[in-house]
Amino acid sequence: MNIVFIGAGNLATHLAEACRAAGHTIVQVYSRTMENAALLAARTGAEAVNELAQISPAAQLYIFSVKDDALPSVVQEMPHAGGVWVHTAGSLPMQLFAARNAKHGVIYPLQTFSKQRKVDFTTIPVFIEGSNSAVIHLLEELVGTLTRNIHYLSGDKRRYLHLAAVYACNFVNHMYTLASEITEKEEISFDVLIPLILETASKVTEMPPRAAQTGPAVRFDKEVMQHHLSLLPDDRMRELYTLISTSIHQHSL
Amino acid sequence: MNIVFIGAGNLATHLAEACRAAGHTIVQVYSRTMENAALLAARTGAEAVNELAQISPAAQLYIFSVKDDALPSVVQEMPHAGGVWVHTAGSLPMQLFAARNAKHGVIYPLQTFSKQRKVDFTTIPVFIEGSNSAVIHLLEELVGTLTRNIHYLSGDKRRYLHLAAVYACNFVNHMYTLASEITEKEEISFDVLIPLILETASKVTEMPPRAAQTGPAVRFDKEVMQHHLSLLPDDRMRELYTLISTSIHQHSL
Repeated sequence: MNIVFIGAGNLATHLAEACRAAGHTIVQVYSRTMENAALLAARTGAEAVNELAQISPAAQLYIFSVKDDALPSVVQEMPHAGGVWVHTAGSLPMQLFAARNAKHGVIYPLQTFSKQRKVDFTTIPVFIEGSNSAVIHLLEELVGTLTRNIHYLSGDKRRYLHLAAVYACNFVNHMYTLASEITEKEEISFDVLIPLILETASKVTEMPPRAAQTGPAVRFDKEVMQHHLSLLPDDRMRELYTLISTSIHQHSL
Repeated sequence: MNIVFIGAGNLATHLAEACRAAGHTIVQVYSRTMENAALLAARTGAEAVNELAQISPAAQLYIFSVKDDALPSVVQEMPHAGGVWVHTAGSLPMQLFAARNAKHGVIYPLQTFSKQRKVDFTTIPVFIEGSNSAVIHLLEELVGTLTRNIHYLSGDKRRYLHLAAVYACNFVNHMYTLASEITEKEEISFDVLIPLILETASKVTEMPPRAAQTGPAVRFDKEVMQHHLSLLPDDRMRELYTLISTSIHQHSL
């Protein structure tokens, strides 16, 4: 399949590389910043462009993978082009393409991507949506070459899945960051927390997270919680500690 | 080594089973609740007791693994016994034994334990502390048969490590719980989040958590965050979402 990528961020990078590895042709990579476009283009054998007007009208698929709040204006300024237009955003409806191209849809890979880290795309759940059955068929064909884990999901449900992913990934990672600040300050290596972090994640592959909950808040061990509050460096940390502990306790009742 | 366990909770269960598997003798298991004492005693070939007065005075090591706020009174009511007394609590000083037994210390395994889930004890980091070098030597000998990952850590540092573990494990697991509530309500299987959860945990084995942060809050994508707030079911969830997102953004600056 001939594909144009609009955007060269973390998700675009991993998706474009997976497409290329599966034998598809990345025709062009567009980014507002030429440096970013050139980097991903070089990794995928594509042409780099930094003006929307330079985008080829002849590709089969245009994958828009830019910041959510930039997407509407990028779609607006996109030159006329055939093929299917899709975005990769969890929270946005596919209908935002409707006024520009009747053949549109969504490819939403549910994973956290950082440019410097390899991921195995074949196990990533990918959620697709399409404006008609021909679009769905085309997306199914493409995504089927990337992963064995394809799902159909409406935009209404996809935004809730994205919200759940913010908790399961972004908020979780921030808890790791706060833990690392505490250990750093005490000159304890963050590495000693790794077996705990991996086991905490593995546990919920076997049991519901509510059943896996441990620690002072679920036991409502007031003394430990008071003691922890006294160790925290500022009001913001204390507020977060109290709010999450209260929420844990309320969910255990 | 001849060991008595005071307490039969999650941590006591895993530690007692690991000691037994390493060839040590579990003499007795005490729990206020006979049923719990009997269960762990049966699994470790020990005698079950539910009165502190029944505890044998002749063991080499007494491991107190009860709720933090129950520990002081249990130590108070413990009959005279020789050997070394240790507890397994992250937040409590070893000195709480001082008035009852000069030979005391701490064995703190940094892991989350649930009774129904097996863990590989040999990779768990265990932090020990002792009131004199003979105690440290004895704990080192015992723990060396359970794991290759032994550390010495003062009580002052241990309480910060415990606090960091609350973030890295208990708070993380609560984020999984909140994610599961969102998916359940939309009749989306929680299982689709598993690859994301495992990758989020694996990432921080390779890069610092701050560098691994992704999502709308670190990009400060206001529209997505506003949209997410509109999807959340109540004020408590919205307050938590806002507070964590703000914290993520502040840590990214």
